[in-house]
Amino acid sequence: MRQIALIIEYDGTNYCGWQRQLNGNSLQAEIEKSLAHLLTVPTRIYGASRTDAGVHARGQVATFRAMTTIAIEKIPAALNSRLPADIVIRHAYEVDENFSARYSVKMKLYRYTIDNCPQRIALGRDYSWHLPYLLDVEKMRAAAQYFIGTHNFRSFTKKKKDAEKPDDYVREIVACTLTQHEYKIFIDFMGRSFLYNMVRNIVGTLVDVGWGKINAAEIPAIIAAENRPDAGQGAPAGGLCLEWIRY
Amino acid sequence: MRQIALIIEYDGTNYCGWQRQLNGNSLQAEIEKSLAHLLTVPTRIYGASRTDAGVHARGQVATFRAMTTIAIEKIPAALNSRLPADIVIRHAYEVDENFSARYSVKMKLYRYTIDNCPQRIALGRDYSWHLPYLLDVEKMRAAAQYFIGTHNFRSFTKKKKDAEKPDDYVREIVACTLTQHEYKIFIDFMGRSFLYNMVRNIVGTLVDVGWGKINAAEIPAIIAAENRPDAGQGAPAGGLCLEWIRY
Repeated sequence: MRQIALIIEYDGTNYCGWQRQLNGNSLQAEIEKSLAHLLTVPTRIYGASRTDAGVHARGQVATFRAMTTIAIEKIPAALNSRLPADIVIRHAYEVDENFSARYSVKMKLYRYTIDNCPQRIALGRDYSWHLPYLLDVEKMRAAAQYFIGTHNFRSFTKKKKDAEKPDDYVREIVACTLTQHEYKIFIDFMGRSFLYNMVRNIVGTLVDVGWGKINAAEIPAIIAAENRPDAGQGAPAGGLCLEWIRY
Repeated sequence: MRQIALIIEYDGTNYCGWQRQLNGNSLQAEIEKSLAHLLTVPTRIYGASRTDAGVHARGQVATFRAMTTIAIEKIPAALNSRLPADIVIRHAYEVDENFSARYSVKMKLYRYTIDNCPQRIALGRDYSWHLPYLLDVEKMRAAAQYFIGTHNFRSFTKKKKDAEKPDDYVREIVACTLTQHEYKIFIDFMGRSFLYNMVRNIVGTLVDVGWGKINAAEIPAIIAAENRPDAGQGAPAGGLCLEWIRY
């Protein structure tokens, strides 16, 4: 039995998200379908990140186990030939049996893209959040500093269904940087793991800082409150992309 | 009666092209529908370029005439509120009665985008032509030089339906430049007017140079042949975008 990891790019616009669901077109199910064709047996894949509906990826990682002698370097093209145009296997490589796409992660980068053009855009509209009012990026940058480090991010996620331990909401953000190119604002989040909706809720809060609804200096208190309503709105899915994962 | 010009951005992926057609979802018809709502009378628009199915625009220009007292600066937002997400009116301004979106053009820029990544892409796949084999951009650049200037471009277009005059196929390409960014190759064409499919057929021919099927030095003979089959394949629509028009 070999364990094989795939690096996957996808346009999440037309999917209900990564995870297989009863009533929905998931990325996992689509890739498993193509894998079942290739291996001639139903094969389950395990993704590193359960991205939401509409969220994109350039570097999702997923693993599967198979009894197969297929040359690894032929797997991407074989799967791609059966996958729809909005999913691409970029790379496949063998990993040892203890490797877990989800738990062996050392670092991830999520990029959120805001389009701060006065008018909405037609080209590329599924890949950014359009905000017509000029955002103060310097203020957003000042606010972003407060998110860096290890914090309880309860204010930026939904209540977990499973029993709560005090550190269930503790995560480390290693970097949170804002860059600009023309009307675009890119917000990059680096960390080992993020809570459900955490990146999008932080982005929404940074945007509230950008147009003056929240003061950058209020961020520490919002984090300390450990209370979702204290933070800003959630940002829409289309602007978010899982860029890469390092193991 | 006032004449008003619109600057329009659109994602052409889901349209049969600019021009109104009996059985098809055209950009012209979509904008005229929104205009009829605003002006409360059916109103015809005249576009500068009849872009094909799947071709995009950041700066299409179209005019209409109306008896209206609406403030010009309010027209874009009023139309945009009724237009689908893949069409945006970026700007509206009044022009004199002799202005023609089509015939008053001084210069246009078309950009063609090639994605020269070894694997196909999922994100942004509707906006470029994916070619997995490494193209020699220097050779393509050498070939592009031969297209600059005034030539008979009969080899790069369909036979015109109307009677042929010798200069019907003569056009001037003012600039044809190739730039690269990561895996992307951008080919920019500047000129006052282009023949049907001319840009896409020149791009296809440049690509044939890029992977060695045609020699750059053969281009003058291909142009001189005035014979469509002598030139290369046509490039697909999705890579083409009408960037701007100058009057």
